[in-house]
Amino acid sequence: VKVGLVGGGVIGGGWAGRLVECGLDVVLYDPRPETERRVGEVLAAAERSWAKLVRAPRTRGTVTFASSLAQAVTDADIVQESATEDEALKRALLAEIDRHAQPDALVCSSTSGLLPTRLQADMSRPQRFVVGHPFNPVYLLPLVEVCAGERTAAETVGRACSFYESIGMRPLRVRREVDGFVADRLLEALWREALWLVHDGVATTADVDDAIRFGPGLRWAQMGTFLTYRIAGGEDGMRHFLEQFGPALQWPWTKLVEVPELSEAFVELLAAQSDDQAEGRSIWELERHRDENLVAIVAALRARDEGAGRVLREHEERVRVAAASEPRAGRLRLHVAVVPPQWIDYNGHMTESRYLEVCADATDALLRHVGVDESYLAGGHSLYTVESHLRHLREVAVDARLVVDTQVLRGSGKHLHLFHVLIDGETGEPVATGEHMLLHVDTRAGRTTPMLEPVAGAVAALAGEHAALGWPEAAGRSVGM
Amino acid sequence: VKVGLVGGGVIGGGWAGRLVECGLDVVLYDPRPETERRVGEVLAAAERSWAKLVRAPRTRGTVTFASSLAQAVTDADIVQESATEDEALKRALLAEIDRHAQPDALVCSSTSGLLPTRLQADMSRPQRFVVGHPFNPVYLLPLVEVCAGERTAAETVGRACSFYESIGMRPLRVRREVDGFVADRLLEALWREALWLVHDGVATTADVDDAIRFGPGLRWAQMGTFLTYRIAGGEDGMRHFLEQFGPALQWPWTKLVEVPELSEAFVELLAAQSDDQAEGRSIWELERHRDENLVAIVAALRARDEGAGRVLREHEERVRVAAASEPRAGRLRLHVAVVPPQWIDYNGHMTESRYLEVCADATDALLRHVGVDESYLAGGHSLYTVESHLRHLREVAVDARLVVDTQVLRGSGKHLHLFHVLIDGETGEPVATGEHMLLHVDTRAGRTTPMLEPVAGAVAALAGEHAALGWPEAAGRSVGM
Repeated sequence: VKVGLVGGGVIGGGWAGRLVECGLDVVLYDPRPETERRVGEVLAAAERSWAKLVRAPRTRGTVTFASSLAQAVTDADIVQESATEDEALKRALLAEIDRHAQPDALVCSSTSGLLPTRLQADMSRPQRFVVGHPFNPVYLLPLVEVCAGERTAAETVGRACSFYESIGMRPLRVRREVDGFVADRLLEALWREALWLVHDGVATTADVDDAIRFGPGLRWAQMGTFLTYRIAGGEDGMRHFLEQFGPALQWPWTKLVEVPELSEAFVELLAAQSDDQAEGRSIWELERHRDENLVAIVAALRARDEGAGRVLREHEERVRVAAASEPRAGRLRLHVAVVPPQWIDYNGHMTESRYLEVCADATDALLRHVGVDESYLAGGHSLYTVESHLRHLREVAVDARLVVDTQVLRGSGKHLHLFHVLIDGETGEPVATGEHMLLHVDTRAGRTTPMLEPVAGAVAALAGEHAALGWPEAAGRSVGM
Repeated sequence: VKVGLVGGGVIGGGWAGRLVECGLDVVLYDPRPETERRVGEVLAAAERSWAKLVRAPRTRGTVTFASSLAQAVTDADIVQESATEDEALKRALLAEIDRHAQPDALVCSSTSGLLPTRLQADMSRPQRFVVGHPFNPVYLLPLVEVCAGERTAAETVGRACSFYESIGMRPLRVRREVDGFVADRLLEALWREALWLVHDGVATTADVDDAIRFGPGLRWAQMGTFLTYRIAGGEDGMRHFLEQFGPALQWPWTKLVEVPELSEAFVELLAAQSDDQAEGRSIWELERHRDENLVAIVAALRARDEGAGRVLREHEERVRVAAASEPRAGRLRLHVAVVPPQWIDYNGHMTESRYLEVCADATDALLRHVGVDESYLAGGHSLYTVESHLRHLREVAVDARLVVDTQVLRGSGKHLHLFHVLIDGETGEPVATGEHMLLHVDTRAGRTTPMLEPVAGAVAALAGEHAALGWPEAAGRSVGM
């Protein structure tokens, strides 16, 4: 898939970042002189974040800067327009994109609130146009609102959603065309109220931010307003909540009628308070800071297989390529790991416990392979590692792709004796070996017991096959031998 | 400190949960018959979350259910009122609390929006009254809004803030008394807009929630609206942002004037959509779900020392007690670890690679102890682990405090041979042993070389001392021996 980007500001650059990290080639057009430098900074931020967050092998795509709009869109399968929020400008750009793009190319606009029916008005192929509104930073936040205009084909909406999913996003189909779609209307409502609070001296900009990030913001990162309030309603659910708290909507808690005038004095006040809050940190420091926080939060949600974390995990699974090479004859190759930066220690290499983590993951993969699944575990049986012997043969650097070849040395009764070789996926050289003894346990009784079917049979079969491989030289040795 | 709680609903119960987890004794009064069961459920939820999240030793306090308001408040240093949001009821309760409490006790109300000046009107000691408005779940969210009434003493505000900080919270002083304070005004503004979106068929309740949790909600968990928008404004900061996006406030993106009527039909629609969203999960399942997500997010923020995570870390540091026990004679005890929830695997025990992580951290502690510091490393020398033998002796559960006793088996030339025993800090029983061979390397040349002073001398001295301890039975063995 080739993508043409029109507009290289914070949103266009963010699209470029996400697309490049997903391995797509991008041609970007923005006539402003600073475009290459500015997009370059966003690409660097995206790479930093994906390197930290994404656990699937990444092949990065490329960005080419076009000297004309036509050049950016002529070969593209998808064109994403991210110009300034100016309806006349966007209409003109979209009509020009429409003229130069291939007839079957998809044309999408990043507008955060303009109506698609109006944006597509000057296009000769309006049916292939749809709004795909992302959120800053585009390379980290999965949400993209997809909103059709009156002349958008149903098929276009489906194609756009599939494309956005393929680059790790979570499309939200907007059911009715309205200014601002869904999220920006919510944001705008909160933002107006925030301005009132500062305007009236109830809070500073830092107070408003603290009121969000130490309280409701933590809830919003993992559950929206409706589900949150459903819980607050207790056992009787949403109906009860509405009965109980509905009347509060009539209370004068928020200023509904007017918007505070952005007088020079009020703008000065906001700007000065915001400066205080930034504590001298530049926009780039704040941005990096934000991205690192988002990386940590999304990683935490991935561990829970929740929300944005689940979107990421599903993306990783889609793009994770099986190890291209074959295991050494007869062994099993069930696990591949890509070394993330947080596995690197102060010596610049993978820290020692991560070698065992890779071995343990390979052991888990083997256990699943022989039938230790949810139901086997739920039946009260599992295998516990009781002993390990690791040999660290070579240093491992960040981004290394480690494949693990596994040999079953013994698999009978309650014993499972495994030998893993961790191999550098690039060079094919072994970087470590792990020898492990596992015991099969009755987890309720808390004692060892022979393996049950189908695990016992699968393990015995592997042990039989692997016996032909011979005993690994490094197995059965003690430290220092 | 003794705390009297008046009201045992979701907020009063949540206070009880937080206070008990902080080791405080609580007396709670709520005349409703179900109080003990309901508060018991919240206490269980709080314990579950703190056990997973908090890395400091916890001594739990107690809850006593009082049979009268007087009994609940008479011995209390602090009384927290959390009755229904009914001004007349709260005024009456606060006047009664005022009569029965010690003259120097602090009296606080959890009201989410009623004015403190009105709430304190019937108290004879209104100067000791202040609003302390927490957020659900009180045991996990650190925010508490502190708002004084006209007759509140300045000293009362300070005392309340100090108390809330001592139980791991983040007080936000509200600068001007307004209905709804800060956070609830923001919440209410967003909530009205959410109701409109569902009312007008633009979105379902699930769509609204997705629009939050996959996008802006992730930002809000770590940075409020103002700092977020400052970044969006680019290098020119908030002033530029306001110039660029200020006019959008005048656009008809949110419905400002009216509140959608909560007609029977609209309530039915909301309730039905909310039921769909819940997918059959009970309020208790959803609540546990939410709490586990919050635990993961706050833990992620703690690792970044950010926002709610920093509040937690500071709290942990305040309460963390040093390891009380001494190492076994002659050995070194340089490392203590408290097992966090993310170290636990699907079997419910510490995952195997974390044993090695603890050993590796103990090895690092030893290296620092013998003089491998920043300047030694900067000089181009380090010690790399080349081999490890682990024996897993006992399962380790979340929150276990592991202490590591270290013996130097050999420390001469380029070899450092270590033996760690991981010990359960509670029972004193060994849970694992780790035997490790390290080689001293010239990191620039990439080859081994003898240790330099002062490390060589320190290591030799330890090896000499530790020789008297004898060779550990488990050292020098191979897997399965």
